[in-house]
Amino acid sequence: MSRIAYVNGLYVPHGSAAVHVEDRGYQFADGVYEVVGVRNGRLIDEELHLDRLDRSLAELAIARPMSRAALKLVMREMLRRNRVRDGMLYVQMTRGVARRDHAIPERCTTSVVMTARRAKAVRLEDLREGVSVITIPDIRWERCDIKTISLLANVLGKQKACAAGVYEAWQVDAQGFVTEGTASNAWIVTKDGQLVTRHTDHAILSGVARRSLLGLAKEEGLALVERPFTVEEARAAREAFITSTMSYILPVVEIDGAVVGSGQPGPVTRRLQDRYMSYVDGPGARA
Amino acid sequence: MSRIAYVNGLYVPHGSAAVHVEDRGYQFADGVYEVVGVRNGRLIDEELHLDRLDRSLAELAIARPMSRAALKLVMREMLRRNRVRDGMLYVQMTRGVARRDHAIPERCTTSVVMTARRAKAVRLEDLREGVSVITIPDIRWERCDIKTISLLANVLGKQKACAAGVYEAWQVDAQGFVTEGTASNAWIVTKDGQLVTRHTDHAILSGVARRSLLGLAKEEGLALVERPFTVEEARAAREAFITSTMSYILPVVEIDGAVVGSGQPGPVTRRLQDRYMSYVDGPGARA
Repeated sequence: MSRIAYVNGLYVPHGSAAVHVEDRGYQFADGVYEVVGVRNGRLIDEELHLDRLDRSLAELAIARPMSRAALKLVMREMLRRNRVRDGMLYVQMTRGVARRDHAIPERCTTSVVMTARRAKAVRLEDLREGVSVITIPDIRWERCDIKTISLLANVLGKQKACAAGVYEAWQVDAQGFVTEGTASNAWIVTKDGQLVTRHTDHAILSGVARRSLLGLAKEEGLALVERPFTVEEARAAREAFITSTMSYILPVVEIDGAVVGSGQPGPVTRRLQDRYMSYVDGPGARA
Repeated sequence: MSRIAYVNGLYVPHGSAAVHVEDRGYQFADGVYEVVGVRNGRLIDEELHLDRLDRSLAELAIARPMSRAALKLVMREMLRRNRVRDGMLYVQMTRGVARRDHAIPERCTTSVVMTARRAKAVRLEDLREGVSVITIPDIRWERCDIKTISLLANVLGKQKACAAGVYEAWQVDAQGFVTEGTASNAWIVTKDGQLVTRHTDHAILSGVARRSLLGLAKEEGLALVERPFTVEEARAAREAFITSTMSYILPVVEIDGAVVGSGQPGPVTRRLQDRYMSYVDGPGARA
């Protein structure tokens, strides 16, 4: 089966899916995106992703290219044409094509690109046994709350993780606080049993999995605090994990080579994993 | 006459110059670029631009797609095909096309795109009478020394300048020091007659016009210091100006609405403008 991409109103073979070289996404990283997980044919937390997409567009003053209803139709058509029941949908919107100039053009038609692919969200082995992370300086810009395609710092960070043979790199700000992973949010369970993840502001992205899990953790009655935590606190934590659209809840068992807690995924992480998977497979993630 | 673009080995009509939607330049801002000025059919400071391009590629571990000799041939062919004697040449190189994943793919073929266009470098009126700038917080990442296409912060900054009806926005770091413009370097002549521009490190780009002018200013025997300066110092300066490939040396006569010096381009700026134009039109810029 050949893959199909959506490019500015057309469904085209993936191999020939192209945009103009003066698309501002290509020359200025002037665009935003979302990755939506697909499980059993359903788009996980679709509305939360589309809410965030709207916010990203608004923050950059990029015009919404179509109504949410129309967008949702295209998203479903992409799943159908690519026969994706388990995998991911990638949606990118950029300011559009214009003669190259830093200033935002007065008239521009927002570009819309979508791709879809079949994929396991995450390796079962990683979900069960956990992964390792390293910590690196957070060198990104000051608007990490916007989900832009200006991802080069994240790419370089992820590459450091790969070079170190670990799953993810936690970025650390100038004050020694963990902000987030290069493509995930960071969580710990402290010695006192507090579930901690960084509060949202301009320094991190408000992850959709993060947001859904916050709601579930409250329902579970866990002692939940949104605040910064240091690398030292994370290393001394009982448990740690990361959340992201495609990794769900992934236990972190090693930080910078030091074992976290028992070195095994802990009970709070396990409980949240179970709860999150019930949520993903239940009616909640559809809302 | 129809414009021609160069895309990965082919000369194609500008309107149909396209790259794949999974080019990492489009999805991750994983690429670098140069803008080279063209005057009287000659590429200004070509070698300095190509040196910087090599450095940018090396910093991101993107493979050089071709030898410098081959690149220079294509650049000349682009000028010829587009009949550009006065204007600009744009060269962009990205890591290439790969299945979307933050981590750097093991195998990737560097993408090369070039466009050329006729244009006046800068309005004569602006060169003669000067321009106004505003100051804005520098919200960019910590590797502004690499000339990447990850330019969204610069776009937003330039847009603030446009909204304020001025030419450029000077970015100011957390300590109150001016780093650089969104697409130019910033200079002042202090009350004591010192010519000051910020030293290069990871916070600013080593501008080619900046670098050439440093050499010329030394030859002129000016009291030259590369160091940070504050917004207050700039407002109290005798003269101020910006340098960039396409704006040459542009006097700054107003900062945040406050007049600089006499409100007219000053004598040091005038002298450097003359010296720079002689340089650009002489054999030096060819080396």
